[in-house]
Amino acid sequence: MRIQRLTKETMQNLLKELLKRSPDSYGEYEDRVAAILKNVKENGDEALFSYTSRFDHADLTKNTIRVTNQEIEDAYRQTEASLIQVIRKALENIRSYHEKQKQYSWFDSKPDGTMLGQKVTPIHRVGVYVPGGKAVYPSSVLMNVIPARIAGVDEIIMVTPPRPDGTVSPHTLVAAKEAGVDAIYKVGGAQAIAALAYGTESIKKTDKIVGPGNIYVALAKKAVYGYVSIDSVAGPSEILVIADETANPRYVAADLLSQAEHDELASAILVTTSEELAKKVSEEVDGFLNTLSRADIIRKSLDNYGYILVAKTMEDAIETANEIASEHLEILTKNPFDIMTRIRNAGAIFLGEYASEPLGDYFAGPNHILPTNGTARFFSPLSVDDFIKKSSIISYSREALSKIHQDIEYFAEAEQLTAHANSIRVRFEEEES
Amino acid sequence: MRIQRLTKETMQNLLKELLKRSPDSYGEYEDRVAAILKNVKENGDEALFSYTSRFDHADLTKNTIRVTNQEIEDAYRQTEASLIQVIRKALENIRSYHEKQKQYSWFDSKPDGTMLGQKVTPIHRVGVYVPGGKAVYPSSVLMNVIPARIAGVDEIIMVTPPRPDGTVSPHTLVAAKEAGVDAIYKVGGAQAIAALAYGTESIKKTDKIVGPGNIYVALAKKAVYGYVSIDSVAGPSEILVIADETANPRYVAADLLSQAEHDELASAILVTTSEELAKKVSEEVDGFLNTLSRADIIRKSLDNYGYILVAKTMEDAIETANEIASEHLEILTKNPFDIMTRIRNAGAIFLGEYASEPLGDYFAGPNHILPTNGTARFFSPLSVDDFIKKSSIISYSREALSKIHQDIEYFAEAEQLTAHANSIRVRFEEEES
Repeated sequence: MRIQRLTKETMQNLLKELLKRSPDSYGEYEDRVAAILKNVKENGDEALFSYTSRFDHADLTKNTIRVTNQEIEDAYRQTEASLIQVIRKALENIRSYHEKQKQYSWFDSKPDGTMLGQKVTPIHRVGVYVPGGKAVYPSSVLMNVIPARIAGVDEIIMVTPPRPDGTVSPHTLVAAKEAGVDAIYKVGGAQAIAALAYGTESIKKTDKIVGPGNIYVALAKKAVYGYVSIDSVAGPSEILVIADETANPRYVAADLLSQAEHDELASAILVTTSEELAKKVSEEVDGFLNTLSRADIIRKSLDNYGYILVAKTMEDAIETANEIASEHLEILTKNPFDIMTRIRNAGAIFLGEYASEPLGDYFAGPNHILPTNGTARFFSPLSVDDFIKKSSIISYSREALSKIHQDIEYFAEAEQLTAHANSIRVRFEEEES
Repeated sequence: MRIQRLTKETMQNLLKELLKRSPDSYGEYEDRVAAILKNVKENGDEALFSYTSRFDHADLTKNTIRVTNQEIEDAYRQTEASLIQVIRKALENIRSYHEKQKQYSWFDSKPDGTMLGQKVTPIHRVGVYVPGGKAVYPSSVLMNVIPARIAGVDEIIMVTPPRPDGTVSPHTLVAAKEAGVDAIYKVGGAQAIAALAYGTESIKKTDKIVGPGNIYVALAKKAVYGYVSIDSVAGPSEILVIADETANPRYVAADLLSQAEHDELASAILVTTSEELAKKVSEEVDGFLNTLSRADIIRKSLDNYGYILVAKTMEDAIETANEIASEHLEILTKNPFDIMTRIRNAGAIFLGEYASEPLGDYFAGPNHILPTNGTARFFSPLSVDDFIKKSSIISYSREALSKIHQDIEYFAEAEQLTAHANSIRVRFEEEES
């Protein structure tokens, strides 16, 4: 891996390179996505069948678009018992962590008869997109569905593109069943997002759509945002490791590689105060590369977006981490908790040499759907928060309103909203006359 | 006002009419907004000055784009002392309510050395858009800025279009100063959103943009979403009142009118189980109309989007309220708390005959920036939540990881991510060899 000195300039260049991974405009794609959305909105199921035939080479009908109970039973038979066991263990941990995110309605009352509060209500119906293709990630199904279930969502609808023979990966189906999905439909791409946003004869309209997908899926989600809600738009994956001279170079190298294997746009960055560690990590990376099945992807990803940066001070390293706002941040230093308190921006923070990033991907419990590409500056990991919404509650007594009614009337008049003032005034007109 | 019987059919038609208020595609506008965004991104301040001259007819320079302390002092002199007093009282209530929304970091540890948690961090820099023009709403400034301040945002930057003489409304400036804005710039429209998203020589790039605006502002916010965060896109305002025979028709009528005066797209709907109340409210509306300064706007808004619906049962009325998912919902019934528990979808819920909607607009404390046009199905009122983000925290001991390392390796291999498996395996390779 390339080793550079951390300066303002390397930093600026690096940020520019990383941001290139999400182009500003997708011209042609946007028009194609808009056409697909419109077609599904107008023609419903028929449009879905036609796109599925064209893009996924599978022929579906009203009778086969929904995954049947029989297909789910078959999926269990086709899945190794040991994988089902591991899925169940992971599910338990994920559930236990997300239970702690639950928020509750509250109110605050005063003796004059006022009550103010905030009511928490689950979103009624949610759509979950699960990518198809060669890479099948049952862990992502768990991570999307469990927080919705814990939030109390009434109905969780999953969509995923079928394989050419019209089937869906058994691992995906098992994960969906274990996590508690209510219905699964064999449709993918922008057409699946349109179905979840507008509804068709077969697929019910949902209130919110979550889950990662390709460029068509991402653009379709952005286009329907506002009409329904969406999760944050997922970008290429990243890891940033902050390490000092106490870190084990072999662990650091292995963790950087685990991120780089995702795809060629993935980014793996080490920021260290130790020049010796920098060299050793680079050597370890080369060593591992010969043993890993996805070495071709890893090489491209490291060539483009992999960096080892040597920082003068730990303060500089921390500032860099905050600027990059990485999806995953590992801290392998003498006192990782101390560094953690100074981190503003990161999706998930892994502390110490045994909190390896893949632990978070599969097992520890926190969500692995995290803000990417610098969006940890303002977005959060997927959580139970994403599946609830709040309503303000206001109750007032005559006594309480009478103390302030003139203030409100005055404020409304100052904003020239006389009907606003009137609606308060009529409640006291007998007193005034 | 028109009185209709509530049936499935009236309901469907009404929903269709209401949704017409936010058109699906803005063709021409989108291209113009994209051009403005691009120009500001490339040319910074110069582009801002040129658009401000063209759209707001005001000439600005690097020296005058930022509101000075002197201008703020002048604004205080130009504002009635009584209005400043009312702003301060409202501010106190708004602050007190939003303080209760604060969320805290937490962690959960186990004796085997694992620690999982969630760190809450304020967003670093936030941009607040405040519309200019004839209608000046200091209350909106308070509602946007106070939750950001309470969340702990480091820097709050406000933008608002100047008047042709280059000044800003003194009421806006006083509200901004009282709420604690850090810097105010005289720029509006899509160009202001571009400045907040990308930064210019004068205006620092922000991480999140909030605040209502016209169609250009709304489209610009949607376009930069993902690069920065935004609040939910604001639409036309609405009220829905659920009332039974115990409601005071005069209060109901006044409250419907207070919403209708906002603009011609505003919607005011009464759903009642009492035919007698329906008639009386309609009469009261006619009576008030002759006395209100904004009667022309109100008439158009009621003709287009005003309805009195007579429901057979309270259950039907509640179902209608949940379907419409109104921005404001008033419940004027014998037992409003009982009805409230059955409401799923509403921005703010006002209980009983003294919780008139304008009380919430100005004074009670809850935010008046609420999800509109059916989006209360999935969006929440603006709150402290909008100005924080979360990071997952994962810390593991060797002991804890050793208990599950084989499960994780197995799961990663099942997903064909061998470098993921490797990063766990290297931590235990000595044991295995």
